Amino acid sequence: MISEADILNSFQHLVEDYKDDSLIAVGSGDDAAVIKSQSKDLIHSLDISKSGTHFPINACPKDIAYRSIAIALSDLAAMGAYPSFITIALTSNEKNLDWYKDFNKGVESIINEYDIKLVGGDITFGDLNICVNVFGYPYKKPLLRSNAKPNDLIYVSGRLGKARKGLMEWNDKKSKYYKNFFRPKVRFDVAEYIADFASSCIDISDGLIKDLGSICKLSGVGAIIRYENINITTDIDDLCHGDDYELCFTCGSEFEESLRNKGLKPIGIIIEGRGVDLLKEDKSVDFIKTGWDSFD
Amino acid sequence: MISEADILNSFQHLVEDYKDDSLIAVGSGDDAAVIKSQSKDLIHSLDISKSGTHFPINACPKDIAYRSIAIALSDLAAMGAYPSFITIALTSNEKNLDWYKDFNKGVESIINEYDIKLVGGDITFGDLNICVNVFGYPYKKPLLRSNAKPNDLIYVSGRLGKARKGLMEWNDKKSKYYKNFFRPKVRFDVAEYIADFASSCIDISDGLIKDLGSICKLSGVGAIIRYENINITTDIDDLCHGDDYELCFTCGSEFEESLRNKGLKPIGIIIEGRGVDLLKEDKSVDFIKTGWDSFD
Repeated sequence: MISEADILNSFQHLVEDYKDDSLIAVGSGDDAAVIKSQSKDLIHSLDISKSGTHFPINACPKDIAYRSIAIALSDLAAMGAYPSFITIALTSNEKNLDWYKDFNKGVESIINEYDIKLVGGDITFGDLNICVNVFGYPYKKPLLRSNAKPNDLIYVSGRLGKARKGLMEWNDKKSKYYKNFFRPKVRFDVAEYIADFASSCIDISDGLIKDLGSICKLSGVGAIIRYENINITTDIDDLCHGDDYELCFTCGSEFEESLRNKGLKPIGIIIEGRGVDLLKEDKSVDFIKTGWDSFD
Repeated sequence: MISEADILNSFQHLVEDYKDDSLIAVGSGDDAAVIKSQSKDLIHSLDISKSGTHFPINACPKDIAYRSIAIALSDLAAMGAYPSFITIALTSNEKNLDWYKDFNKGVESIINEYDIKLVGGDITFGDLNICVNVFGYPYKKPLLRSNAKPNDLIYVSGRLGKARKGLMEWNDKKSKYYKNFFRPKVRFDVAEYIADFASSCIDISDGLIKDLGSICKLSGVGAIIRYENINITTDIDDLCHGDDYELCFTCGSEFEESLRNKGLKPIGIIIEGRGVDLLKEDKSVDFIKTGWDSFD
């Protein structure tokens, strides 16, 4: 039987020596982490990833770790923030230390990729459940869901449905879509670019229709989007499947040209009203039309 | 079937309107919380509480919520910090909304008691698992586990073994010890008092012998404690059972008189060496003597 100490030791090389660090005064090993005072707001979010709910039960530990952290980091991007440090609460029934070593390789891979620190965590035995706490700072100001205004244009970064296809093909590791589900790219590049002019922003975790619906609800507005303008992978269901972690954002039409130069075209417009109206060949797609109440 | 939205709605009254708040700019409802810049270090810790591991599987939801938050807050006290805000990641299989309403009553009770804010969280379905993230600020400077020095005296606040007795008697709600397990008092009062002179501090979550052992290991010192000096409830096993969340701390002997006036008497002394040596009637209690390696 491996002990909690064995598992914690397997993480230890990921926690740096924070002496002389400008951000972290005390990392893992004490009762708590000490984050030095910063002259900027701190953005904090958390996400639970559960086996069988958020990823297939037989996914490999490296992918599980990477994805669990990536989707939590995506909330920072959606707030117009860059990532700084994370803590992880890991519940696992695995008895084999190799599982934890592989999990840690996934952690190491993503913290190196985004240059962030692991500053603490907790571990307990039980059904696989990973809670990732993420911390960052705004590029400019925090981007909220609640500031979209009528006549703002609506954008989505990248292509939707990639993760859906990746999940369908996940047993085929040669699939070029495999990584889109397990290793989503967190759109900090987009977040940084739009940070000083977007009026609202959200990441696509639950599907465009629902996530844009959340912007509409919190901003007290409606949205019309055109199917033909949306970059999809397979079919219209790509708009209801999440997991892509692209950013959906709104901004005034004065930014249309510069966004077009970046390869981003508007998919629709914010209107007075409520809910998301999806048009296909100029007709509302009724089965998908969502109202305010759907998100209560 | 209740939905995630139903559950989140049941929490909503606990999340304040943070407009004009000096600490929180954006609370629950957006992608992340925004904590305004503060001119002091931030202390952050997290604790997982799991049904069957950290509390009996048939404990009531109000107690579960209270205890899960209390034991996480205790890490702040152990760092010499006062609590400010928390986030909660809740995994639960409960299908009855009343369970969540009761759980929330426990949350409400403790956040009101310590005047802290709930600023966000996540929820998913699965075996009961509560990850509580706590955030606070130092009363003076952070109290570490690693600064105990030879000749420092060793103290423990309150009485040990109360939670052990409470757990044994937990079915008897008339037991005066019941609350000691489910509603431990977080010793912020002690933390504040010792914040500017304690050399090290830890909370008793795993038992005095193990927790003082952690101070010894991280400080590179040993400890001698006397059984007769320790305030216990039942018997010597109270020193190996955790859950009391009293504070164990060390400080120079020049503070002995003022601590005695506060009702705190030293239980032992830090020495050069390693491990914790428990003396009973001047003889080492061998079965309990712990060495450095025990905590690796």
